[in-house]
Amino acid sequence: MRRVAVAGVGMTKFGVSEKSQVEMFAEAAMEAIDGSNLKARDIQALYLGNGLGDFEEGQMNLAPLCAFELGLPVGAPAVRVEGACASASVAIREAFIWVASGFYDVVLVGGVERATAMGTPLATRTFAMGADSRYEGFSGVTFPGAFAMVTRMYAEKYGLPLEVLKRHMALVAVKNHKNGVKNPLAQFRKEISVDTVLNSAMVADPIQLFDCCPFSDGAAALVLAAEDVAKKLCPQPVYVRGVGQGSNGPLYRQRDITRIRAREEAAAQSYRMAGLTPADIDVCELHDCFTIAEIVASEGLGFFPFGQGSAAVEKGETAIGGRIPINPSGGLKAKGHPIGATGAAQAYEIVKQLRGECGDRQVAGARVGMTDTLGGDLATLVNIIYGV
Amino acid sequence: MRRVAVAGVGMTKFGVSEKSQVEMFAEAAMEAIDGSNLKARDIQALYLGNGLGDFEEGQMNLAPLCAFELGLPVGAPAVRVEGACASASVAIREAFIWVASGFYDVVLVGGVERATAMGTPLATRTFAMGADSRYEGFSGVTFPGAFAMVTRMYAEKYGLPLEVLKRHMALVAVKNHKNGVKNPLAQFRKEISVDTVLNSAMVADPIQLFDCCPFSDGAAALVLAAEDVAKKLCPQPVYVRGVGQGSNGPLYRQRDITRIRAREEAAAQSYRMAGLTPADIDVCELHDCFTIAEIVASEGLGFFPFGQGSAAVEKGETAIGGRIPINPSGGLKAKGHPIGATGAAQAYEIVKQLRGECGDRQVAGARVGMTDTLGGDLATLVNIIYGV
Repeated sequence: MRRVAVAGVGMTKFGVSEKSQVEMFAEAAMEAIDGSNLKARDIQALYLGNGLGDFEEGQMNLAPLCAFELGLPVGAPAVRVEGACASASVAIREAFIWVASGFYDVVLVGGVERATAMGTPLATRTFAMGADSRYEGFSGVTFPGAFAMVTRMYAEKYGLPLEVLKRHMALVAVKNHKNGVKNPLAQFRKEISVDTVLNSAMVADPIQLFDCCPFSDGAAALVLAAEDVAKKLCPQPVYVRGVGQGSNGPLYRQRDITRIRAREEAAAQSYRMAGLTPADIDVCELHDCFTIAEIVASEGLGFFPFGQGSAAVEKGETAIGGRIPINPSGGLKAKGHPIGATGAAQAYEIVKQLRGECGDRQVAGARVGMTDTLGGDLATLVNIIYGV
Repeated sequence: MRRVAVAGVGMTKFGVSEKSQVEMFAEAAMEAIDGSNLKARDIQALYLGNGLGDFEEGQMNLAPLCAFELGLPVGAPAVRVEGACASASVAIREAFIWVASGFYDVVLVGGVERATAMGTPLATRTFAMGADSRYEGFSGVTFPGAFAMVTRMYAEKYGLPLEVLKRHMALVAVKNHKNGVKNPLAQFRKEISVDTVLNSAMVADPIQLFDCCPFSDGAAALVLAAEDVAKKLCPQPVYVRGVGQGSNGPLYRQRDITRIRAREEAAAQSYRMAGLTPADIDVCELHDCFTIAEIVASEGLGFFPFGQGSAAVEKGETAIGGRIPINPSGGLKAKGHPIGATGAAQAYEIVKQLRGECGDRQVAGARVGMTDTLGGDLATLVNIIYGV
């Protein structure tokens, strides 16, 4: 296996866009290709994460359309992968092996989604297809409902008064909005307070509106290259040091939804490959689709003992400057969540952090970073560790 | 790179099924796992081709649901890939690299689709999302229409009277139905005549009903294993000798739709990796979504000079017993076309042929076989060469 580096990254502003998915992805991809000092004709394959392009734009088989728009060679395979909200991270792991194995030297990977066109209520129901449709879908389970159950189980399991947990969850939102203000590509760039969260509309009791990430349009992309190639292309290659992916059954078949088994497996795989432990991670972008999701993820990745991720937020341990800064980009909560692009946007942030290019939101001295992306009803989990 | 073998294969009967996609895939996958003398817990990853599970069953992120149903380990990544009708062949190529690279020893791969539930007219419009939605979709282009254009351009380019071409196309259907009679898993097991085709309903002039493959429900699966592992598992491993994949822009951006550039690139890649030429292929399963598609594919793969694939059908060169038997399974035309499963079903047939297990439809002495799978409006093309 060869070492694999990120030679360049690109990302659109997240939010509401009038552009097509092909156009958004092309924008992010050209930034990544230009930043790698390459031309589109140099790219040997494309891996594209996309969740529901068919529902959003009546478009399936999106990958070759993106490849053609960019001017990639006809001989370059263009592959769309779908793992619900984890699609782009699944794509990065696929792209990784083609370079690590020596088959390709330079591969483009990323994700795109145009999730806002349907509006939030319909999008919420539509993206619930990422959960089990046979039993959960017909029971009306949507993702806010699923994470409402996680919240109640977390409070119950750890004997935490719900009011205390809800305050800690609100602090996750406050932190991520504060970080988002410093990210020019974030969808929401406005600070909020604990009261903003606790006074917001109830979505799925006890999940309130400001506990939820938005739906977003956007794209992000990376160029992965073999180590020797990357060293010639760019002054600051960032390396993929570990990858991991796990798979769970649907929510209704899981014993303890406060712990995502697929995450524990995926994280263990990525730490093992990197030869690192949670204590070695300097910065992490993780899947805060809901505020409670950030708390359980911070435990599942090993940053805090189970049941203590909640209090850690209040202590400021996950803020920029804290022990393990989480979601300095603003996270899904403030940066936005274009489903199929999210994993690539997390990678974009980590690469920028490890290059020291994050300005006001820079995590000082960050040398190792991690991404964590969840797809479906706790069903797909991808972790990737990057290092300089 | 290690040699990769197929240790086991499985396939459901194709046709109309009341089973869910998870159930159909589980049936095919368990046959492949049992046939490999493995247990589900031995599988290290799953690659699943699926086209439109969201439209068909309201189900996205299908792969981990299949993995869970089968009892695969939580640490096994489950990845859905979508390349329209080529989805399963894209999945096989992805599974291949994880084994070839030495990362995994045993990987499950396949595809599934439940395409009949919407009925053919709606399915035709829905699957047209595999073509370009921005320009072609709004112009009303569906796949029968696209291949009607291919037919007219083929006749024009090669100076072939349309009546002659249409007779040759009808002979493709007659041959594939004849083969399908001998395949217990085929959807249509009834011989037809040239008159059956030429008297059938007009779908998109000059494509008639019997020039078209059906929509189908079904699943197929393979277990890929490293050579040394496969040799211990099964008496007759079949090897993946070459893989290739190409990508084109949409139909409306292509200069000559009688030649699919992505196919010519993909075929060249697979021949090069295998160290073989078209003359070395003993049997081929190719993408006869329409009768004209079989003719242009037989040329694009190098079996006949461009413009001569049509006459070759009349000479019987593509029949079982002919120079290069094409679609002994009955092809998409008679065996059926469950979109996301088709590439895996082609692989199933080639593996069975190379093992000499095809009974009445056996191609005598077949030692090298090839699959050819087309996705979208000539946009994705995957070729895989298998050998004993």
